[in-house]
Amino acid sequence: MSDLLRLRPVATADMIAVFDDAATIAHACAFEIALARAQAAHGVLAPELAEAIVAGVDPARIDTAELAEAAALAGTLAIPLVARLRAMVVDGEAAKALHRGATSQDVADTVLMRQVRAAHRLLADDGRRVRDGLAALARGHAERPAIGRTLLQNAMPVAFGLRLAQAARGIDDALVMLDVAVERHAGLQLGGAAGTRADLDGRGAVVAVHMAKALGLGPTAPWHARRTGVAAIGAAVGLLIGALGKVARDVALLAQNGIGEVREPQVAGRGGSSAMAHKRNPTGCQVALSAATRAPGLVASLLGGMAQEQERGLGGWQAEGPVLADLFLLASGSAAALAVVAEGLEIDTAAIARNLGAAAVGDDIGESAAIIAELLGGMGE
Amino acid sequence: MSDLLRLRPVATADMIAVFDDAATIAHACAFEIALARAQAAHGVLAPELAEAIVAGVDPARIDTAELAEAAALAGTLAIPLVARLRAMVVDGEAAKALHRGATSQDVADTVLMRQVRAAHRLLADDGRRVRDGLAALARGHAERPAIGRTLLQNAMPVAFGLRLAQAARGIDDALVMLDVAVERHAGLQLGGAAGTRADLDGRGAVVAVHMAKALGLGPTAPWHARRTGVAAIGAAVGLLIGALGKVARDVALLAQNGIGEVREPQVAGRGGSSAMAHKRNPTGCQVALSAATRAPGLVASLLGGMAQEQERGLGGWQAEGPVLADLFLLASGSAAALAVVAEGLEIDTAAIARNLGAAAVGDDIGESAAIIAELLGGMGE
Amino acid sequence: MSDLLRLRPVATADMIAVFDDAATIAHACAFEIALARAQAAHGVLAPELAEAIVAGVDPARIDTAELAEAAALAGTLAIPLVARLRAMVVDGEAAKALHRGATSQDVADTVLMRQVRAAHRLLADDGRRVRDGLAALARGHAERPAIGRTLLQNAMPVAFGLRLAQAARGIDDALVMLDVAVERHAGLQLGGAAGTRADLDGRGAVVAVHMAKALGLGPTAPWHARRTGVAAIGAAVGLLIGALGKVARDVALLAQNGIGEVREPQVAGRGGSSAMAHKRNPTGCQVALSAATRAPGLVASLLGGMAQEQERGLGGWQAEGPVLADLFLLASGSAAALAVVAEGLEIDTAAIARNLGAAAVGDDIGESAAIIAELLGGMGE
Amino acid sequence: MSDLLRLRPVATADMIAVFDDAATIAHACAFEIALARAQAAHGVLAPELAEAIVAGVDPARIDTAELAEAAALAGTLAIPLVARLRAMVVDGEAAKALHRGATSQDVADTVLMRQVRAAHRLLADDGRRVRDGLAALARGHAERPAIGRTLLQNAMPVAFGLRLAQAARGIDDALVMLDVAVERHAGLQLGGAAGTRADLDGRGAVVAVHMAKALGLGPTAPWHARRTGVAAIGAAVGLLIGALGKVARDVALLAQNGIGEVREPQVAGRGGSSAMAHKRNPTGCQVALSAATRAPGLVASLLGGMAQEQERGLGGWQAEGPVLADLFLLASGSAAALAVVAEGLEIDTAAIARNLGAAAVGDDIGESAAIIAELLGGMGE
Repeated sequence: MSDLLRLRPVATADMIAVFDDAATIAHACAFEIALARAQAAHGVLAPELAEAIVAGVDPARIDTAELAEAAALAGTLAIPLVARLRAMVVDGEAAKALHRGATSQDVADTVLMRQVRAAHRLLADDGRRVRDGLAALARGHAERPAIGRTLLQNAMPVAFGLRLAQAARGIDDALVMLDVAVERHAGLQLGGAAGTRADLDGRGAVVAVHMAKALGLGPTAPWHARRTGVAAIGAAVGLLIGALGKVARDVALLAQNGIGEVREPQVAGRGGSSAMAHKRNPTGCQVALSAATRAPGLVASLLGGMAQEQERGLGGWQAEGPVLADLFLLASGSAAALAVVAEGLEIDTAAIARNLGAAAVGDDIGESAAIIAELLGGMGE
Repeated sequence: MSDLLRLRPVATADMIAVFDDAATIAHACAFEIALARAQAAHGVLAPELAEAIVAGVDPARIDTAELAEAAALAGTLAIPLVARLRAMVVDGEAAKALHRGATSQDVADTVLMRQVRAAHRLLADDGRRVRDGLAALARGHAERPAIGRTLLQNAMPVAFGLRLAQAARGIDDALVMLDVAVERHAGLQLGGAAGTRADLDGRGAVVAVHMAKALGLGPTAPWHARRTGVAAIGAAVGLLIGALGKVARDVALLAQNGIGEVREPQVAGRGGSSAMAHKRNPTGCQVALSAATRAPGLVASLLGGMAQEQERGLGGWQAEGPVLADLFLLASGSAAALAVVAEGLEIDTAAIARNLGAAAVGDDIGESAAIIAELLGGMGE
Repeated sequence: MSDLLRLRPVATADMIAVFDDAATIAHACAFEIALARAQAAHGVLAPELAEAIVAGVDPARIDTAELAEAAALAGTLAIPLVARLRAMVVDGEAAKALHRGATSQDVADTVLMRQVRAAHRLLADDGRRVRDGLAALARGHAERPAIGRTLLQNAMPVAFGLRLAQAARGIDDALVMLDVAVERHAGLQLGGAAGTRADLDGRGAVVAVHMAKALGLGPTAPWHARRTGVAAIGAAVGLLIGALGKVARDVALLAQNGIGEVREPQVAGRGGSSAMAHKRNPTGCQVALSAATRAPGLVASLLGGMAQEQERGLGGWQAEGPVLADLFLLASGSAAALAVVAEGLEIDTAAIARNLGAAAVGDDIGESAAIIAELLGGMGE
Repeated sequence: MSDLLRLRPVATADMIAVFDDAATIAHACAFEIALARAQAAHGVLAPELAEAIVAGVDPARIDTAELAEAAALAGTLAIPLVARLRAMVVDGEAAKALHRGATSQDVADTVLMRQVRAAHRLLADDGRRVRDGLAALARGHAERPAIGRTLLQNAMPVAFGLRLAQAARGIDDALVMLDVAVERHAGLQLGGAAGTRADLDGRGAVVAVHMAKALGLGPTAPWHARRTGVAAIGAAVGLLIGALGKVARDVALLAQNGIGEVREPQVAGRGGSSAMAHKRNPTGCQVALSAATRAPGLVASLLGGMAQEQERGLGGWQAEGPVLADLFLLASGSAAALAVVAEGLEIDTAAIARNLGAAAVGDDIGESAAIIAELLGGMGE
């Protein structure tokens, strides 16, 4: 199956690549190779066997469609994948040693966290672009009076930049929570059949540290049976999508006919209508608001799976990977779309002045500029 | 992107095909063809122009990946698709007439409802297999005393078949709600730019009836601006996934070591462990419980998008299609997996008797048999 | 605890009364009385014992705060309640017979469904007021051109009444789904300890029918172990809240300064600001949009609890009652607030004309009037 | 309305008191008093006027039921409350000065965050009791072989304490995320009508710092228009409820008849059945699992409200307070119930040995003890 028509409009091509089949298989192969090397480095496996594994494992030789069928039948990806990898390893003893001391969940959880770290890097970049784009606009309009609106009604004046500064800081708040969650929880999983690191000759802890370093992952204590980390990462992505949604809501409202204080930047091929050639639709906002509509339920799904059974849950665990991927996919589309919007937002200062005048509430923007400075000054901490 | 490793383990191949890119493009082409023919039949379009459209439109000539990029940029599938379809129509006047009177949302909503109807047929079949498999078992064990369990503790005796009959009826309850929702709401959408059927020469109503018949769809009043139907269908799928989850929960609990009253049927290649060859995992239940973990959040996403703006929402509407597809995909995997389980469930009557004896609460199953008959007798209504 | 400051702004006083402690205790007492009378009518209990029960049970003598503490400790309401009711029955044999053949869940589920039926009546009344108010406005403005708006941008003309007709029909769609769900699923629960109707002398079915009639409830087959019905009712309430949210969104958008096509009716004491005396806030819309923000998650909670264990679940079941009550409470506030809005909406036809003119897209409203007639004509079916 | 029968079984009395009407009114009065004093301290208000405000404001004189009606009508609590407080202040000029520079949302947000801080203290205490109770058991059984279970089937041996250590660490993970969220985001809100601190004579920043200190709150930059913090706190509470649910799931599964490795401690009056006197139900687990069923949807509601409009949202903002309160209420009940369970868990070592023997997989617990030490050693950081 190809699923581009559903995925591409909501996610960036880069983020899709992070979670696609090829990446998943590549990460799984990297896990098995890192395991063999770490075992060799710590005397659990003969170095020549490890080298035979490294030499044999080749993700390019996997037939994805066939593997997917086998995984669907088996109820787990690792069993059929390990069988295929073993068949690639010429030396019989080495083939048997591949995956030793590990279990399906070790592969799946570690693959997921490698994808999380890659996804986080992409997302943080685009998230910071939105934040910084808004912050620059906020500074540029820190003294410009505009009508503030509460409950969708004209209220009292604000600096036009104050709203943008609040939005920038809201995104920063979410980026910080996401950094914390990924740093604390995107770690290696290596526990073996029931999470005890049996079958690693008592060297499990050092093997894990070695593997984690090779795979660029953080904490190394087994976490198969506690899923707080996965849910925390997902919740933080959900917060970011929500904070981005706030920006999109405001831009879309300000871009309405009859208000007209901003417009999304013109992008060739974007924002048209199949029936109305005159329209300029806020398409970047649409992407972000669509993501904000979908994300809360996805976070709920992750939280709803937390009460997993014993050493490995039945259903709850298996639900996590696709949901976490969906959250990062949606976040990528939202952040990328709004980065373009924030960096190129067209601001109509005449409309701002006109709308403020029509509200007839003066132009006292109070301490707006100081608040903007405080909000932006506290970012990134 | 290929996404088989995430999709295939949770959905049937048939259901994946219902929502894949090829199906989406085919339905969109069918929409444009049906529109042209209906317009010709009712004098809105010259018959030869309609025939030129029919002759030209060819879904096989669409480059999906390229279209997906264009759709992502445009923020809508229909604009780039219609452009490509027009390019296929040799006659210039016919090319221009293609899509006349319609708008992007007309295509998207109608495509979605064609997919819903196809998905519903597949799902209802598998759902009935689960229901009927459980019902047959319930009848077969309508008089067999077993220990009932409440709050995960031994309680009082029940007929072993009573639990299965309750589960069967629970599924039937959900199938009925789904039938009602699809029947009432999976209709044609044809409204044009703002939903008024302008640009159809005052023949919009008859054109819509004609198209709906050609496309196998139900109600024909425009519904672009009220999304209760989409959400109702999604909620009904969620109910079914939940009712299936109930079955999976009970089978998995009864299959635990130390209880052992049932086992999933043996399926070659299914339910093994990458680290423990002796295991027989309840993989069918796993698929169903994973779906039950994910579905509630998806239903929430649909409901969360209902408060859409004016004639066409910004974000809420665009979120619906992928979410509804995900619900049907998850439901398909759950129902298919449990159909195998229900039709082949291994029941250990000795274990049932042993567990009942250990509970020391006698063997009075009260009116179990009558209740089973009442529950099963009311199904399908 | 009193919780009026949180409850009263989101729910009607009438709906709060449906679910308050006094109503819960009264329904529970009615269950025990109906059980005794039904047993007496069918020879399961001596008539004089039934009369002693009826004479003794007095909800007014229950100390709610003390009972709540006991229920919190026990983990179930029925045990301490039954103990207190038995203490009220002077005849010892009658006291012992009270609650015979029933279990805690029978009381709780039946109480909940009595509350559901009462809540449904209140809610359907207010929901129809919104629907009919909108329908009347739609008819009155079926020929009035207004600018249609898609993706929050001016699009093409529509009849001003068309948007209202779509909204009215969306509410009607939800009311129908709710009727279906309540009619099918708001039934008596009587199953006894494990749901077999043991301990009712083989007369369980007729006792149940007798009780259901006395208590004004529908289906009578035990449903303790299948929760599709509870979730279906909750989902339907969620649909209604979403359909009402759509109305609120549109009214609030149309009431913005710079657009000004409608205003909520003036209600003394409503919609002011603590800091800005000049404001007129769309407070009815606020109540409805707040409900629409909260409802999707509540529906997810109900669906998330469906995969309950065996004859009575641990946690999932206990979660349902409060969540279903919250849904009805929120729906009541939304419907009541919007009934006032729909019945008194101020429409500024000059602003409508002005905004349409500014859009410069002519005034062709296509088949708006016919669509309005079709939408409204199909309601209530 | 009194709502004890719904609230008390799911929440502690202490937590109910944090969010009840009396507490809400008291915090609102504290806000107005702190505002007046801070203004006096910084020359914005004459000291004698501030003293007149302090002397007059008396939460005990508020009629809650009457206020709730007024708030429901007004659509905001602060307007009718401020009116009643002003009526208590004898000096007319002082009465007028009360609430100067503030707006409804300032009061509501600040009240909420005072409640959050109080709730967090209570919850962290009970959360740590669960964590530390489990950790102590984990250490005590760090060398005891038990059968590990994956996918609800016997797998390979684990130390009995390893499962408990994973659960303890999962709770610790969540407590850390909650600490971070509360510390960063539970701050004072003081922005005035549109969030600019107009009407504070340019002293808004110092007035805010003064107030925050008096009210025991953290950051002071206005946050009315960015809701990431509220959602982050709610998500963290949701994570904790999920981590607690994991414990409850495992305890309930281990307590099943036929497994019997643990039992909840005996608590007088708890865990009985209204129909089966012999039962000992896992009532603490029931409370925790019920909370875990409800929490994901509530977190979704908070996230779903994040995309709020402009300077003050319509609906999304108003939805937050009750939902956040519900999360803390549910968390309190869960943590308190499981604290009792963790501190008194009955462990049947004979059953553990028997179940392990029956699994016939030896007794190699690998590096369990080292993993336990690593998991517990990293807690609290």
